[in-house]
Amino acid sequence: MTTVERPLTVIGTNPVRPDGVEKVTGRAIYGADVRLNGMLYGRVKRSPHAHAIIKRIDASKALALPGVHAVVTFEDFPPPAEPIMQTIRGPMPAQWDVERLLARRKVLFKGHPVAAICATDPHLAEDALELIEVDYDVLPAVVSLDDALAPDAPALHDDGLADLVDGLLEPAEGESPNVARTMEMGFGNLEEGFAEAEVVLERVYETGMAHQGYIEPHNGTAVWNSDGKLTVWTSTQGAFGVRMNMARVLDIPLGDLRVIPAEIGGGFGAKNVIYLEPLAALLSRKSGRPVQLTMNRAEVLEATGPTSGTRSFIKLGAKRDGTLVAADIRLEYMAGAYPGSPVAGGARCALGPYLVPHQRIIGLDVVLNRPKTAAYRAPGAPASAYAVEAVLDELAELLDMDPMELRDKNAVTEGDPRSDGATHGSVAAREVVAATTAHPHYRAEITKPDVGRGVAMGFWQNGGGESSAYANVHADGTVTLTTGSVDIGGQRAALAMQFAETMGIAYEDVNSLVGDTDTIGFTGNTGGSRTTFATGWAVYEAALDIRKQLEERVATLWDVPRDAVSYDPADASLHGPDGKLMTFKEAAERLPGSGGNIQGQADVVSTTVGKVGACFGAHIADVEVDRETGKVTVLRYTAIQDVGKAIHPAYVEGQVQGGAVQGIGMALNEDYFYNDDGSMANASFLDYRMPVTNDVPMIDTVLVEIPNPGHPYGVRGVGEVPIVPPLAAIANAIYDAVGVRIHSLPASPALILEELERLEAAGD
Amino acid sequence: MTTVERPLTVIGTNPVRPDGVEKVTGRAIYGADVRLNGMLYGRVKRSPHAHAIIKRIDASKALALPGVHAVVTFEDFPPPAEPIMQTIRGPMPAQWDVERLLARRKVLFKGHPVAAICATDPHLAEDALELIEVDYDVLPAVVSLDDALAPDAPALHDDGLADLVDGLLEPAEGESPNVARTMEMGFGNLEEGFAEAEVVLERVYETGMAHQGYIEPHNGTAVWNSDGKLTVWTSTQGAFGVRMNMARVLDIPLGDLRVIPAEIGGGFGAKNVIYLEPLAALLSRKSGRPVQLTMNRAEVLEATGPTSGTRSFIKLGAKRDGTLVAADIRLEYMAGAYPGSPVAGGARCALGPYLVPHQRIIGLDVVLNRPKTAAYRAPGAPASAYAVEAVLDELAELLDMDPMELRDKNAVTEGDPRSDGATHGSVAAREVVAATTAHPHYRAEITKPDVGRGVAMGFWQNGGGESSAYANVHADGTVTLTTGSVDIGGQRAALAMQFAETMGIAYEDVNSLVGDTDTIGFTGNTGGSRTTFATGWAVYEAALDIRKQLEERVATLWDVPRDAVSYDPADASLHGPDGKLMTFKEAAERLPGSGGNIQGQADVVSTTVGKVGACFGAHIADVEVDRETGKVTVLRYTAIQDVGKAIHPAYVEGQVQGGAVQGIGMALNEDYFYNDDGSMANASFLDYRMPVTNDVPMIDTVLVEIPNPGHPYGVRGVGEVPIVPPLAAIANAIYDAVGVRIHSLPASPALILEELERLEAAGD
Repeated sequence: MTTVERPLTVIGTNPVRPDGVEKVTGRAIYGADVRLNGMLYGRVKRSPHAHAIIKRIDASKALALPGVHAVVTFEDFPPPAEPIMQTIRGPMPAQWDVERLLARRKVLFKGHPVAAICATDPHLAEDALELIEVDYDVLPAVVSLDDALAPDAPALHDDGLADLVDGLLEPAEGESPNVARTMEMGFGNLEEGFAEAEVVLERVYETGMAHQGYIEPHNGTAVWNSDGKLTVWTSTQGAFGVRMNMARVLDIPLGDLRVIPAEIGGGFGAKNVIYLEPLAALLSRKSGRPVQLTMNRAEVLEATGPTSGTRSFIKLGAKRDGTLVAADIRLEYMAGAYPGSPVAGGARCALGPYLVPHQRIIGLDVVLNRPKTAAYRAPGAPASAYAVEAVLDELAELLDMDPMELRDKNAVTEGDPRSDGATHGSVAAREVVAATTAHPHYRAEITKPDVGRGVAMGFWQNGGGESSAYANVHADGTVTLTTGSVDIGGQRAALAMQFAETMGIAYEDVNSLVGDTDTIGFTGNTGGSRTTFATGWAVYEAALDIRKQLEERVATLWDVPRDAVSYDPADASLHGPDGKLMTFKEAAERLPGSGGNIQGQADVVSTTVGKVGACFGAHIADVEVDRETGKVTVLRYTAIQDVGKAIHPAYVEGQVQGGAVQGIGMALNEDYFYNDDGSMANASFLDYRMPVTNDVPMIDTVLVEIPNPGHPYGVRGVGEVPIVPPLAAIANAIYDAVGVRIHSLPASPALILEELERLEAAGD
Repeated sequence: MTTVERPLTVIGTNPVRPDGVEKVTGRAIYGADVRLNGMLYGRVKRSPHAHAIIKRIDASKALALPGVHAVVTFEDFPPPAEPIMQTIRGPMPAQWDVERLLARRKVLFKGHPVAAICATDPHLAEDALELIEVDYDVLPAVVSLDDALAPDAPALHDDGLADLVDGLLEPAEGESPNVARTMEMGFGNLEEGFAEAEVVLERVYETGMAHQGYIEPHNGTAVWNSDGKLTVWTSTQGAFGVRMNMARVLDIPLGDLRVIPAEIGGGFGAKNVIYLEPLAALLSRKSGRPVQLTMNRAEVLEATGPTSGTRSFIKLGAKRDGTLVAADIRLEYMAGAYPGSPVAGGARCALGPYLVPHQRIIGLDVVLNRPKTAAYRAPGAPASAYAVEAVLDELAELLDMDPMELRDKNAVTEGDPRSDGATHGSVAAREVVAATTAHPHYRAEITKPDVGRGVAMGFWQNGGGESSAYANVHADGTVTLTTGSVDIGGQRAALAMQFAETMGIAYEDVNSLVGDTDTIGFTGNTGGSRTTFATGWAVYEAALDIRKQLEERVATLWDVPRDAVSYDPADASLHGPDGKLMTFKEAAERLPGSGGNIQGQADVVSTTVGKVGACFGAHIADVEVDRETGKVTVLRYTAIQDVGKAIHPAYVEGQVQGGAVQGIGMALNEDYFYNDDGSMANASFLDYRMPVTNDVPMIDTVLVEIPNPGHPYGVRGVGEVPIVPPLAAIANAIYDAVGVRIHSLPASPALILEELERLEAAGD
């Protein structure tokens, strides 16, 4: 691959996003804004129990209500299909996906869908839900890791589904039936490592279950025609992912299913999952009408995928000089009602920034009566990194070392092994450490009592995968660029910028669109911090394709050999023999009359043509602890991150700030509080307390631009890693402020008060 | 280019159309079905006068009505732009387009838009129209050719607009100011030709103004964002044409305007024109909301573009053996309120099927106070062909020749000159004549009195131009094919078939879509019988592109040289050395894991890669004339046509039948009846009488398949020519039945009775 060497004119600037006006004026069409003639509105009948056997579902009274058009239950899905490999997290049987969508024999969490109904208006549909009669045999709810992992725990999956997939739900002798999977990674020799260690710390940390908290609830609109063609509109992170998952559960060919991604009001990983879309499809097939389903906030919190609550056992060995020599880590991650927690992500990232020569990381995927978890920004990493970074803070204190000096000593460099067995490519962990220690915030004097400072690092490997781009050159020299990447964080702009840069034309001349599964080639989901990197590759290649075609055409127009014409993006012009020159605009105008307009395209598997660049963050947090109320206030916060080349620095800054705030929420406030019956006690945004603007200071950012040599414009993904360090940075700052080590997040006022009391009691 | 030689498996079959179910179930989204949040509904204030000066427009009362959001008039358009070349019919200043859309100083036809309004509901908008006050100075209405062509006729365009375009509206000395353009074509030497002639006939024929009568009225929906981006939904024959025309009148860059073609309920040429779309755009800009405008039927008839009423002066010279030697033709075509009748089409096709060595055809484009005409199926040809074919019928009688023998003697063959100066390519006029004379209908005995038979021929040169295609191969071996061709007559199927044939895959595996101006490359309008030919080329090339990419990929997978792998559509498989074989489906499945899915594309100017094939039709009509009422009943009708290779024979048959019925309508019933004040007396489908099913017999068709050697699958356009012969075939049949020569169509009962009376009087 080629790195573009000439001075960049578009990349690095901060143009206005193309979707901004539509969004602020309310014209952008989100999933729930789709309107179709004759459309029916659906609602979902959900289980009031966290764990129960369904004895009977009777929808006859609901169906008798005038205006109700159809009811669907599990029986309306086709019979179970063959297990198919699922994206990152290994094999998952479609059958489980189906049972998650509409319960079969058992309900496994409060809010588990049991039936769906559609009617002429949404209020009628809501009312009709009451008329669907469901009888249950209620079973004990398993909502904590302790409950789930007890060897005699009630088994959630007791009906043989386990046989569908090797290695899943086959607990070892004496192990709880709710351990869905045990995974292990690492290298070296633990015994040898701990033998070398001069200091060993062994600690346990917990984190709560946290929701992504996107503003826009889930939705799905479907029209299933009698000729078998199904069209779906939905707010999703990836239309192609929705297509694959829906084709599986509905057992239909890919070519019969068109998925049109609407604008999306936040996803953070959770909108890679289908919830309402297949129900809308089944209701449409049954009613013969378009059907739209939307969730309310309680449904989003109770019945979509938050991230795992976790418990991490950390045993870390180091030499007195701070050199880490051994780590033995056990991670227990809540999967929710079905297997598939992000424990692998937690395992991969726990020691991500550091080289620990002897390491073992064991991860348990634990099912319990909570909603099935979904990806949430750097899935799994914040919890395990919190544990390791908190231990490192203790270690630094014990060794009387500067905490960043400790991290610098152990930071990975290119060629070092990663926990998952891969090798680090070009990384900038050391540069991030250096930028952090050099930052004024790091050395700023703390003058008030009960104020403390914490630091922590984080790692995310970033994603690659396949992306497509397609670009049309219009006769006036403007270009429409279509990609398959749903735009969550400014992708339309960031992709148009890479395209414009490659062509040497103005950003404003590129009209950037998101295609659907029929109008653009296969493109992986917008997630894993892959899009600016991988789809950026695709738009770069599509621009090169256009440049090549322009060269060919202009060679014909000039009647010179093909090789005598070259496109130079520096002046956006074609150059030929004897000083011949034609600008891109002039060429575009001549295309229609000389063989036709041109279109460029590319379908790129980014990792076969380039190399993903991992990235690192280091955060500095100052907090003040109110000893009377236990309230922790973040006073100052700085996030330092290597971001490769920042295509659109303002968006990169926004990504870093957003991730930091979400991490602060996990550190201080956010949690799923469960009643004993397995019902969520705080299923609203009033009670599920996310940070809002006045809860946090301005998040300062430092973008350390170390270009990724594996991408023409040096792009690294930037969106995930900023959520990783805040948990430990805040916990470490609390210790620095008032001397209590927090082993369980969120560090709620109640917990702080309890810990302060314990500290006082110990001091007595 | 290559003609595909292997046996065809998809082409020539009659699969189900992909849009059929959507259309019959009411789910297809036509322009008026578009629904957007916050959308306003617009209505147009139209002139009640055919010719008047606007003294004052006052919308203040309308704007004061609660719920009314905006009113636009001519002033809301940007100042006049430079004249730009318009498609086929020569230069037209954008200024005229603008004045047609919203009148400036004068109104020029009843129904001429004066203002447009939008409100929260369509009824309110309708009511508010009454509150827009317009004062007029009424001028004399010019509604007939005689009125318009009088040297002292009131001039429609008396304000200097003429200066904008050379050669337009510059009448010769003593000529009416309403002759917008005089054109001439032909070759040879008239004097010499008529000197050779042994028989000379000189006749005058007239035809009425006829409307295309599509079921779906015009519509336009627009959202104009404050960032300058404008999105338009409309039922059109060509999204790219709408884009060009709107960009001109609104003076905006192409890249800022996205035109999304809705499903279309008929066009026949008239939906190449913009009417409501720019008004919706201006109202949207002014109101800040999405705006939708639709027409009612009276608006469609009074204010969109029917075809010209015409008068043709024919002087034809022949030898006694039937050899045509000279033709002098003058065509006077009504342009409507602005220049641009299809007189050039009439001139090109008048003598189309025949070689007349000495010929001159003069065409006049005449403006008058009727709606501006638009294209209507073989624009211009039915009227002039009627005149020539009626004269030929008289000539055959005079020479005592079989009418088809006369035509056979003079039929063109490859290499003969065309009236327009071009040379005929591969044509099949003779084969059509042979198929006609061989048809049982031609020799069937007529046993009833007052029943007669007529024959006539027709010619249309067909269109070519630029088309794009884009195809995505899905992992399950299905393919989505997007083209820019709006689907009016089954294009989605006919294009998917050519794609499937080229790939050797099943028609059902190709999902055929219509793109919009942003999602597909430039494509000319669906019109001029160009689409199956030109866009067929594009899908053929896109399939070849995919085949090439498959060969490259599979060569890599097999680790063999690129050239050792070839795709064979005969078994839809890739073949390599040592009998290696991989089917398309297998390859499609392996793409994602081996460098990514693939997409194929092509942007083809069909006429630079291939050659358009003209076509000919000969129709046989049996009619019965009721001497008491004057009613003419069509008893039997056979349409013979060379169709190249019929891609989807059932659709081709449908095209031929539809065209014939429209021609029958022109021959017998359809006309614009004008009151003296220039108002249309029959502006409804009750009074504007189109043939319905029980007015016509089953139209028998004979498809003469003479492949066009200029296309890989031998395609010729088929949609236009069938409307050309019916006028003369019916007129000639009426003569055969009751002995009256009809010189003016439609041959209404009143006219028939009048002619019968005259005949009787002459016989006395």
